[in-house]
Amino acid sequence: MKKLLVQLDDRSYPIYIGSGLLNRPELLTQHIKSRQVLVVTNETIAPLYLDAILKNLQSYIVETVVLPDGEQYKTLDFVARIFDKLLAGKFSRNATLIALGGGVIGDMGGFAAACYQRGIPFLQIPTTLLAQVDSSVGGKTGVNHALGKNMIGAFYQPQCVIADADVLDTLDDRQLSAGLAEVIKYGLIRDAEFFVWLENNMDALLARDKQALAFVIERSCINKAEVVVEDETESGVRATLNLGHTFGHAIETGVGYGQYLHGEAVAIGTCQAADLSRRKGWLNDADVARIMALFKRAKLPVNPPKEIDSQRFLELMAVDKKNVDGQIRLILLKKIGEATLPTDINQELLEVTLKTYGR
Amino acid sequence: MKKLLVQLDDRSYPIYIGSGLLNRPELLTQHIKSRQVLVVTNETIAPLYLDAILKNLQSYIVETVVLPDGEQYKTLDFVARIFDKLLAGKFSRNATLIALGGGVIGDMGGFAAACYQRGIPFLQIPTTLLAQVDSSVGGKTGVNHALGKNMIGAFYQPQCVIADADVLDTLDDRQLSAGLAEVIKYGLIRDAEFFVWLENNMDALLARDKQALAFVIERSCINKAEVVVEDETESGVRATLNLGHTFGHAIETGVGYGQYLHGEAVAIGTCQAADLSRRKGWLNDADVARIMALFKRAKLPVNPPKEIDSQRFLELMAVDKKNVDGQIRLILLKKIGEATLPTDINQELLEVTLKTYGR
Repeated sequence: MKKLLVQLDDRSYPIYIGSGLLNRPELLTQHIKSRQVLVVTNETIAPLYLDAILKNLQSYIVETVVLPDGEQYKTLDFVARIFDKLLAGKFSRNATLIALGGGVIGDMGGFAAACYQRGIPFLQIPTTLLAQVDSSVGGKTGVNHALGKNMIGAFYQPQCVIADADVLDTLDDRQLSAGLAEVIKYGLIRDAEFFVWLENNMDALLARDKQALAFVIERSCINKAEVVVEDETESGVRATLNLGHTFGHAIETGVGYGQYLHGEAVAIGTCQAADLSRRKGWLNDADVARIMALFKRAKLPVNPPKEIDSQRFLELMAVDKKNVDGQIRLILLKKIGEATLPTDINQELLEVTLKTYGR
Repeated sequence: MKKLLVQLDDRSYPIYIGSGLLNRPELLTQHIKSRQVLVVTNETIAPLYLDAILKNLQSYIVETVVLPDGEQYKTLDFVARIFDKLLAGKFSRNATLIALGGGVIGDMGGFAAACYQRGIPFLQIPTTLLAQVDSSVGGKTGVNHALGKNMIGAFYQPQCVIADADVLDTLDDRQLSAGLAEVIKYGLIRDAEFFVWLENNMDALLARDKQALAFVIERSCINKAEVVVEDETESGVRATLNLGHTFGHAIETGVGYGQYLHGEAVAIGTCQAADLSRRKGWLNDADVARIMALFKRAKLPVNPPKEIDSQRFLELMAVDKKNVDGQIRLILLKKIGEATLPTDINQELLEVTLKTYGR
């Protein structure tokens, strides 16, 4: 087992990475300071891993909330179900919430923990590759709104993250690929060496080679943690983690949450960002080809959905957390391994990308 | 005009107290760093003061949300209306939210600001005595749940608080009295001299003597700010501000939000806490009589509603932010001017108070 520390003063916490971690009760219980525990999970994960978690919690007063599975349920209304359960169970402010699931469960569970009684402790047990390499680390929590992705939320750090590589055995291929989109992102924004490693090892990852996956989780978490420690609340460099996300969020919102997996939309969005970076003169044709090729090898889509035309893209992108006074700003690539900070965009150039890339 | 500073490192902010402050645009605009501004208010306040505020904001892009007036609307569903407006207007993360109203508007506006895009700046313009002396200061924001008062929220500090004593001219008598309940509270928990001053000046306050009211706002804000600076997130002494609130919240939740004004429920709850403090041997009969007399002179109720029996009180009080693992803890009085920290309660003694006090 590897243990990484996310250094955030009094909000510091460990990420445990390894195999068989769900069967080690002490990893969990050393971070629980209460008798009351609420486990939040979804209908896909509950039959697979809920029993294992509950077995580790036999000396606690435990309640569970099982939500439906999918991005379309990441709403204020479904977070309210978590509040209902906490209150019906008379959960106190020292109670602990455990988010057992992928990014959607982590985001909702974390947001519920941030808001219940103005904040109770919570633990992340991510069960998808995407959640293990990205969303469970760094304290971004929240829900979607019909008009914009992740528009309602909080920065709220967990007590620990337990990333058990064994849970990836039950992950379907589409979810595995979606996780790889965020993995590739780290290579693109700040770790060129890792990008090359991914080019050389993509087949092993898709074949679910345990060692390759464990390396990817660790290397991604190191990248993520370094960025988060530098800029916890995204006043600067943290925004680079959002490469491709402004396009991606527009896709997710535009076609309806749950149609694309988040990682799939990010893959497309990152290719759009690469195309625009080329038009800015920063990437060359060969760079863009390499980027697209790697996403394709990860079995990810690279072309935007036909039903969102450029006008609709602009409209959807006008709601984004990087924007200032409604003006679109994007993360682009200076080269493979280096991203820009949020950059004001020449609207004409953006429109060229929206009208021509993948059309 | 007086200016108090709430010293919270990078979250420090001023409270402006005085007359005619709504007509001083610079007070407001110096704290606005965006072009986009959302004003959140209610149906009672909008006709009275919204125009004055909008007049100060002519060079901004301004939207308004007018919510219905009352504690029964302090819910997640009504906060969602604020999110709807922010998103429909494509408000960015640098946009500013202004909460113009009493405690309910301040709590909801502040919570919406805390959550929108994981946090946008907000300003408090409290328009009730209660909001000016208590709820607008200190960063507690949130909404009620059917099973518990203020159970969903965030600690989130405003950029400034503008307390214009002139707005109290339009406050009805019942609301004025409700505000005095929290004022009396400061005397009881930490400022015995102020308690005596209130005994000597209650008539002037009820007659709305401007000088007396201004003194009360300032002295209350000083007390509040000192406590908040010492313990921003209520790990200790801040809980003393909750004197009477566990009983009071049970009353508000039990009879249905909006039946009692918050200050009215706090007045009753504080008398219950005083009764229990006497049974603990800390207050004597004369102390309790003085406390009840002052609330009565402020035209506040002191007896709990008949429809909540002791069993129901216990049930309602089992959900409270001071509780630990579901065990009730209360703030009591050692003497007039000194409160206890949250104290484990002998359930039998509590039941005696619930069964006998005011019955």
